[in-house]
Amino acid sequence: MSRIDLQTAIDSIRPVDSAKLAAVQQRIDSQAKPQGALGRLEEFARRFVAITGRDEIRAKRVFTFAGDHGVTEEGVSAFPREVTPQMVFNFLEGGASINALARQVGAAVNVVDMGVDHEFAPAEGLILRKVGRGTANFAKGPAMSRADAVRSLEVGIEMAALCREQGVDLAGTGDMGIGNTTPSAAIAACMTGHTVAEVTFRGTGIDDAALVNKIRVIETGLALNAPDPKDPVDVLAKIGGFEIGGIAGLVLGCAAFGIPVVVDGFISTAGALIASELHPNVRDYIFAAHQSVEIGHGAMLAKIGQRPILDLDMRLGEGTGGALAMGLIEAALRALREVKTFDDAGVTPGSEQ
Amino acid sequence: MSRIDLQTAIDSIRPVDSAKLAAVQQRIDSQAKPQGALGRLEEFARRFVAITGRDEIRAKRVFTFAGDHGVTEEGVSAFPREVTPQMVFNFLEGGASINALARQVGAAVNVVDMGVDHEFAPAEGLILRKVGRGTANFAKGPAMSRADAVRSLEVGIEMAALCREQGVDLAGTGDMGIGNTTPSAAIAACMTGHTVAEVTFRGTGIDDAALVNKIRVIETGLALNAPDPKDPVDVLAKIGGFEIGGIAGLVLGCAAFGIPVVVDGFISTAGALIASELHPNVRDYIFAAHQSVEIGHGAMLAKIGQRPILDLDMRLGEGTGGALAMGLIEAALRALREVKTFDDAGVTPGSEQ
Repeated sequence: MSRIDLQTAIDSIRPVDSAKLAAVQQRIDSQAKPQGALGRLEEFARRFVAITGRDEIRAKRVFTFAGDHGVTEEGVSAFPREVTPQMVFNFLEGGASINALARQVGAAVNVVDMGVDHEFAPAEGLILRKVGRGTANFAKGPAMSRADAVRSLEVGIEMAALCREQGVDLAGTGDMGIGNTTPSAAIAACMTGHTVAEVTFRGTGIDDAALVNKIRVIETGLALNAPDPKDPVDVLAKIGGFEIGGIAGLVLGCAAFGIPVVVDGFISTAGALIASELHPNVRDYIFAAHQSVEIGHGAMLAKIGQRPILDLDMRLGEGTGGALAMGLIEAALRALREVKTFDDAGVTPGSEQ
Repeated sequence: MSRIDLQTAIDSIRPVDSAKLAAVQQRIDSQAKPQGALGRLEEFARRFVAITGRDEIRAKRVFTFAGDHGVTEEGVSAFPREVTPQMVFNFLEGGASINALARQVGAAVNVVDMGVDHEFAPAEGLILRKVGRGTANFAKGPAMSRADAVRSLEVGIEMAALCREQGVDLAGTGDMGIGNTTPSAAIAACMTGHTVAEVTFRGTGIDDAALVNKIRVIETGLALNAPDPKDPVDVLAKIGGFEIGGIAGLVLGCAAFGIPVVVDGFISTAGALIASELHPNVRDYIFAAHQSVEIGHGAMLAKIGQRPILDLDMRLGEGTGGALAMGLIEAALRALREVKTFDDAGVTPGSEQ
């Protein structure tokens, strides 16, 4: 598979064609139902078809990017760091939540090792692209070099290219990385202008004292590194994570190659925000899967300009919300394909048609 | 199949066993993920298993109850009355939105003729239980007799009995009836205490003038018939509809026979509210599929005490929101069955576990 560099991907991003969007809506409006009555399902179908030129999904794939975080030494997570590789093994064995939910909607799962602090042997479903064995502690310096930030973005772009080559018409983002709500909240604060306290929450389940500490750690990291919110690669390098870079690259690459991408929850949205700030039209390719319980999520979604599809009080990551949203996008496409027109069904149009 | 009368069904309703709910949650909490991180999926799994004793759905079925409404002569709908039988034929041919969405989630669709103003020949998937050829115009008198209200409820109960006999573990409600947001809004106003203007909206797409007229028609009907909100059968008889009675009966029957029931949108929720007021434990068996665009929906859901699963700006009826919600409930059960425990997955539990 050909390696595509970051700038080439950015330069190839185009807006979604508004004439194509209108043509799909016209097709929907000929169907025997009150106009607009399928609500957001119509939006999903419209965007998917305008982006891909298809009204059916050949294959769906969730990429669960995994990485470790130096900032875990500050006590920001309820889980120990060794859980990152343990969960990677669980993904590969098909025993995690993302596996169950992806099976439910018929999506494949690929795990991408972006920077787990463990050396994995090759395994089916595992894509080895380690940029480093965990980031550095961003409370004491930059999480990674700018070169590594670009490298992690380019791994994500490569995954989008893989989708294009293999006929994957709908990609999903996912994450695994103990401690990764901390860099995600740092990105949220840096890029939305909210205070750290406004965008920082309990992650996998820390208590009040740990939450106070987590906020302080993020404030320290932001003050120390002074990431430039106008330079998304700088933000990723100073306070990000390898898996967040992979997610950002996948989202960017999907926009570059015309592939709709379902963005999971809080961590994935931090990645999607970096991608969206690298090119404004990236957001047109994003389907925001769900509203996370993490309090900083809404501010990032607002900046991206996408409304979440689901709101089920989830806060798991892995790509779980994305898998569920894929099922709804697929339902929208089935309605587009299979609902008869007023003419074909012999139904009298209403006065508002 | 044995006919069950209304009082027998009401008398057999029991609360969902709280010990069973707790046992399912304990099973969920042993799975390798942060506690509670699957949010409402955990609630869906907990309730489904506690109600049915199963963790897998053998069969799902949507019942789309159809009926006509005398009140359409007041000009309350954007569609002409003949669309009700036309859409029934569309359902039977598999060309409507509910057919497409039910196929997507693997649910069967049965159409129940409760009171369409058309004589149907027998057809596969069609259940003929006509109570009358459309209700009377409730702006000029009661919509139906009390005996017919009981009869329509008992048809719904019979459908729940059918589910029990045929191994249908998850039932869904649906509706078809031109004009039926009008009786539904009337029921909402009568049973929630809101004003008619607060719960009445555009249905399939009426304009401002028609909306003003619709509100006036409902106010006239409520003043004329004076339905007793403490007597749900009286409410159904005075201002309801045959298909709304069928829905109410299905919901009540599902509670009686221990079958979880997915309640679709505005019209279905009017039926579910009647059922919930007939016995307080009915609500424990209800899964509220989605938040409709109809402004009176939220007030009825609040009275039932169930929070909608989806919020996708839908306003179609037929059972469409219910079909989508069935897919999410099934996903929740798959996660329950297939996600490994901390022990089995070799994952270290967090400090909050």
